[in-house]
Amino acid sequence: GLIRLVILVAYIGLIGLGRLGRIYADHFVHRIAQVNLMAVADAQGQLAESCAQELGVPNWYEDSMALVANKDIDAVVVVSPTHTHHDIVVAAAREGKAIFCEKPISLSLEETGLMVQAVEKAGVFFHMGFMRRFDKGYVAAKRKIEDGVIGTPVVFKSSSRDPYPPSLEYAEHSGGMIIDMGIHDIDIVRWFMGEVKSVYSIGATLAYPELQAIGDIDNAITTLTFENGSLGVIDLSRNGVYGYDIRAEVLGTQGALMIGYLRETPLVVMTREGITHDTVPFFMERFGDAYVTQLDDFVSNVLHDKEPSITIADGRAALRIGMAATLSQKENNPVEVRSI
Amino acid sequence: GLIRLVILVAYIGLIGLGRLGRIYADHFVHRIAQVNLMAVADAQGQLAESCAQELGVPNWYEDSMALVANKDIDAVVVVSPTHTHHDIVVAAAREGKAIFCEKPISLSLEETGLMVQAVEKAGVFFHMGFMRRFDKGYVAAKRKIEDGVIGTPVVFKSSSRDPYPPSLEYAEHSGGMIIDMGIHDIDIVRWFMGEVKSVYSIGATLAYPELQAIGDIDNAITTLTFENGSLGVIDLSRNGVYGYDIRAEVLGTQGALMIGYLRETPLVVMTREGITHDTVPFFMERFGDAYVTQLDDFVSNVLHDKEPSITIADGRAALRIGMAATLSQKENNPVEVRSI
Amino acid sequence: GLIRLVILVAYIGLIGLGRLGRIYADHFVHRIAQVNLMAVADAQGQLAESCAQELGVPNWYEDSMALVANKDIDAVVVVSPTHTHHDIVVAAAREGKAIFCEKPISLSLEETGLMVQAVEKAGVFFHMGFMRRFDKGYVAAKRKIEDGVIGTPVVFKSSSRDPYPPSLEYAEHSGGMIIDMGIHDIDIVRWFMGEVKSVYSIGATLAYPELQAIGDIDNAITTLTFENGSLGVIDLSRNGVYGYDIRAEVLGTQGALMIGYLRETPLVVMTREGITHDTVPFFMERFGDAYVTQLDDFVSNVLHDKEPSITIADGRAALRIGMAATLSQKENNPVEVRSI
Amino acid sequence: GLIRLVILVAYIGLIGLGRLGRIYADHFVHRIAQVNLMAVADAQGQLAESCAQELGVPNWYEDSMALVANKDIDAVVVVSPTHTHHDIVVAAAREGKAIFCEKPISLSLEETGLMVQAVEKAGVFFHMGFMRRFDKGYVAAKRKIEDGVIGTPVVFKSSSRDPYPPSLEYAEHSGGMIIDMGIHDIDIVRWFMGEVKSVYSIGATLAYPELQAIGDIDNAITTLTFENGSLGVIDLSRNGVYGYDIRAEVLGTQGALMIGYLRETPLVVMTREGITHDTVPFFMERFGDAYVTQLDDFVSNVLHDKEPSITIADGRAALRIGMAATLSQKENNPVEVRSI
Repeated sequence: GLIRLVILVAYIGLIGLGRLGRIYADHFVHRIAQVNLMAVADAQGQLAESCAQELGVPNWYEDSMALVANKDIDAVVVVSPTHTHHDIVVAAAREGKAIFCEKPISLSLEETGLMVQAVEKAGVFFHMGFMRRFDKGYVAAKRKIEDGVIGTPVVFKSSSRDPYPPSLEYAEHSGGMIIDMGIHDIDIVRWFMGEVKSVYSIGATLAYPELQAIGDIDNAITTLTFENGSLGVIDLSRNGVYGYDIRAEVLGTQGALMIGYLRETPLVVMTREGITHDTVPFFMERFGDAYVTQLDDFVSNVLHDKEPSITIADGRAALRIGMAATLSQKENNPVEVRSI
Repeated sequence: GLIRLVILVAYIGLIGLGRLGRIYADHFVHRIAQVNLMAVADAQGQLAESCAQELGVPNWYEDSMALVANKDIDAVVVVSPTHTHHDIVVAAAREGKAIFCEKPISLSLEETGLMVQAVEKAGVFFHMGFMRRFDKGYVAAKRKIEDGVIGTPVVFKSSSRDPYPPSLEYAEHSGGMIIDMGIHDIDIVRWFMGEVKSVYSIGATLAYPELQAIGDIDNAITTLTFENGSLGVIDLSRNGVYGYDIRAEVLGTQGALMIGYLRETPLVVMTREGITHDTVPFFMERFGDAYVTQLDDFVSNVLHDKEPSITIADGRAALRIGMAATLSQKENNPVEVRSI
Repeated sequence: GLIRLVILVAYIGLIGLGRLGRIYADHFVHRIAQVNLMAVADAQGQLAESCAQELGVPNWYEDSMALVANKDIDAVVVVSPTHTHHDIVVAAAREGKAIFCEKPISLSLEETGLMVQAVEKAGVFFHMGFMRRFDKGYVAAKRKIEDGVIGTPVVFKSSSRDPYPPSLEYAEHSGGMIIDMGIHDIDIVRWFMGEVKSVYSIGATLAYPELQAIGDIDNAITTLTFENGSLGVIDLSRNGVYGYDIRAEVLGTQGALMIGYLRETPLVVMTREGITHDTVPFFMERFGDAYVTQLDDFVSNVLHDKEPSITIADGRAALRIGMAATLSQKENNPVEVRSI
Repeated sequence: GLIRLVILVAYIGLIGLGRLGRIYADHFVHRIAQVNLMAVADAQGQLAESCAQELGVPNWYEDSMALVANKDIDAVVVVSPTHTHHDIVVAAAREGKAIFCEKPISLSLEETGLMVQAVEKAGVFFHMGFMRRFDKGYVAAKRKIEDGVIGTPVVFKSSSRDPYPPSLEYAEHSGGMIIDMGIHDIDIVRWFMGEVKSVYSIGATLAYPELQAIGDIDNAITTLTFENGSLGVIDLSRNGVYGYDIRAEVLGTQGALMIGYLRETPLVVMTREGITHDTVPFFMERFGDAYVTQLDDFVSNVLHDKEPSITIADGRAALRIGMAATLSQKENNPVEVRSI
């Protein structure tokens, strides 16, 4: 029994303790089975120290490379800022660690290429973090598509709205709204419909003029033409002020699917002013369970020597499409994805 | 062709030009095929006169008996106050007219018995007006029950809420809320579930104390035990201030049905205050089409010598249950329907 | 009284008795007040004759020009095939008739220009038929926008899906799917958001390959950039096989609006297989009331010397955008509307 | 820091490791802060042993009294079968432990009286487990009522449907369906509306005849008259075969509230067969979060010397109403609650 248990526990090191990273730390300690959170790292050392103390994590680091070098660690979970992904992933691959990396993989296709090379050369496990693929709604939709319930999918629609804009500091290093927000929609597009041939985007700064100073937009619409001839459209907004609103639709030759909901609390209020319910506040209320399920899937696949559910190739493909869509918006012309 | 057309047009006389009667007049002129509205009558003669002028109806009467005596009329439609139903129906039966009578048939079972006798003796067609049986939702539910979609129905629930109370003048002659409002629910109960064995009601004047002066209530709940052992409950309210809200549910051994809706306009408003839509104002918005369909059905059955879709026996049975439920509320005891 | 009544009744001539025209004939006879349907015309003379007989219309014509020349007629309602609009409208304008013309105004901007000239020169009343502007949902949305409920509108989305494809014969003369179906969405876009600066479309024949033979498509997505910088997107499909599905959304800086619904009958069925309701079959179920309201509005404005609610300029502007969107789809490039 | 932390951690002993008890054990270990799960007990000793091993709980017992006697334990959580509640609670009170007791408190009012005496005499903290009071929907509804959003509440409706019947073994010791299922509804009734004066119930065995052998029913409807004159109704069913369906409604003089939902996964499927979504499987999907929140509330109140959110008096009052309703169903007569 003892030997078997040792084999089936993953020793995890977590890098990046921002909003999402700190939640992952809790998940690894409380919600994910067969995991030992061995170390946490954050460029702000005191974040790592206090997190380690609170959760009883035996090691903490300011330097993520020190965590990567820790021989006791089987798998590295990368939730640090996007510009740090390349160095961490390449180093972790060289150390032979299994890797989980949050979206987007990078803001540079060149860097991404180097990451792919490092991962392939080392032959390490790499899971690209796109939690929507683990949401009950998207999972059920994928199954319906595969079961042929809607015939052949011909049109994909996706809509993502944040309830408020990001900080300028964050937005500045985000790669722009289409990549920052839209990469989730783009990943789902590929999962449901296949590869994207070309894109066209329009976008503008319509609600938060301060974003113009850093060259970002707050609303965008991107059309997609798929290799198989199908059509798609993604619309993104930073001003979904009524709540976090994530929807998708797939129209097929025999029916359609709609994913998403707008109601958080199971209460409806009926007065002379109308029938009213509340909305979903933000992403943790919408995708909280999906984050846990994704980490579970990552750990389970690592432990059982299975393939990752989402690959580094998925990360690169989504980035390429996001960059094509961003370029298209700037040049006001359709862009072939392979031209990027 | 001419002879055939003459046979297939019903010559209608309409008695009672209140809120609903006036709408029926319009329907007969504009919406119902194969009908000639030959005469209208109302105790307020000027209502009859102006209605006849506006709609081009050739005859109008202050005295409903004069209309009934008109030999050119094939069918009499009775939408006058409930206390007038007996005399008109008995006279119309004697004249051999087909009869349509609005709910409730009467407020007295003795009177109702005489009406049944008159109709049976004369062998005339008699349609009891319960428009819910012609609403798309109730019709579809009835079909699902008959198709066995929910297995054996075991529990029936119905809820009716008016957006505001009736005038005291109206309420005083209405037979009380359970009969006035609930008779629609009772009719549907019988249609969906079969005969009612016993009832128990609680009720109170909770929102409009002025109703107490005339001995009426504004909220009531009635449980029903059916002859076949199934269970039911009807709740009624005069203070559905948010809108006209008519719902029903049938729970079976293999599933359930829900009838009803709360939204009138296909618009949803999403702001920081929540997600809001409007409500159904009142009964014409909810059952406008059902009224037309019912009149159509009446005329068609009369013209084609078919049986009425809802019989005078249905009218009597619903009244009896309504009276049992009313008595139960007053005596605070279960009441066997056959004891009434 | 008599004189006043004569003034306030419009003498209508109706041209075109296809699916929609025949319904209009019924509406004029039964549902619209202050109207005398004086004449009907259809290139298939027997359609005109039988319609006139059934509804008691005093005149019928095979030749629409004969109807236009009828001096007793105040207003001409044009529901004939699009390619006939130009000749009828120009002739009716010369005769000084008030004109109602179904969408699209024409398939040629040159012809449309001549129609505008004729109408302006004659100074006649001209109502462009776009019934969605009279649907309760769109009307309520327009009011919410004007009341500032959602702040400044920044993104418009519209989706139209037909439950099955048109006949090839119809499609061949329809101007293509974007104009045929999308012109309704385009008109609403302009009403809600203002003028369109440029468009980009993708489209394909994905569900009904037979449409390729006549050069038509069955799915399309069009993005729109407005003069004021706002963004929009319209998606159209012929394969909404689950039902007629017409939706629109307006996202503003302070909230959003959603128009549309997917449920026809107020019945929900709950079984082990899930919770299910039906769908809206087709356009008459969805927009039946809006058609009546629009005709009412037309007649009322004609009778009271008011301006038309939708002008010939609206018809031309929508056509121009539809043509730009169609061109864009063919050339795979964004198109400036004013370049058309 | 150290001393303060010791004070703010509750040392919990958990009795009963059935379906719900085992989940509570997990919650105490993983989801509830400031808790040390010190011991688990179950009459099936091996359940206690394996649970202790899996979760690292230092002590396990077959004999619940041994757990109660453990001096290191501050608080006892009772999730064992109802008939064991009395002995455990009385003993725990004598030991001065804080107590959490699952519903129903007991099946005997006499026993309950002794438990109340023991708790009062010892002056210990006692939280009566009714998790619905911690569900977001019920909490939000309570707040709306208190804020006067619906005016004065006048009618309460509640409906609980289980997706399948209990085992005969369980049902036999459950106190009958009205107490076993309905006690949740009864507790909410009291929370929202105040004290119940009298009840009347009808019930029958309609879907699962095997329940008759043990004298239980599978469907029931109970009306309630409140001390303040308001009205209520609760309907219960074991044959909600389409899913776990828990709803409540409060109608007031100025509006109404509806609590509940029928959809688990954010996916809607639209085909020619209709628009379909799934349902909520069972109580952990519906009330999983509420169970955690309730345990959190219990621990927090114990640690901060606050009053329990739900008292032993609430447990007794709900039981008394449940017994009155059960008696009424058997005797087919209204029953005054104080007569029990």
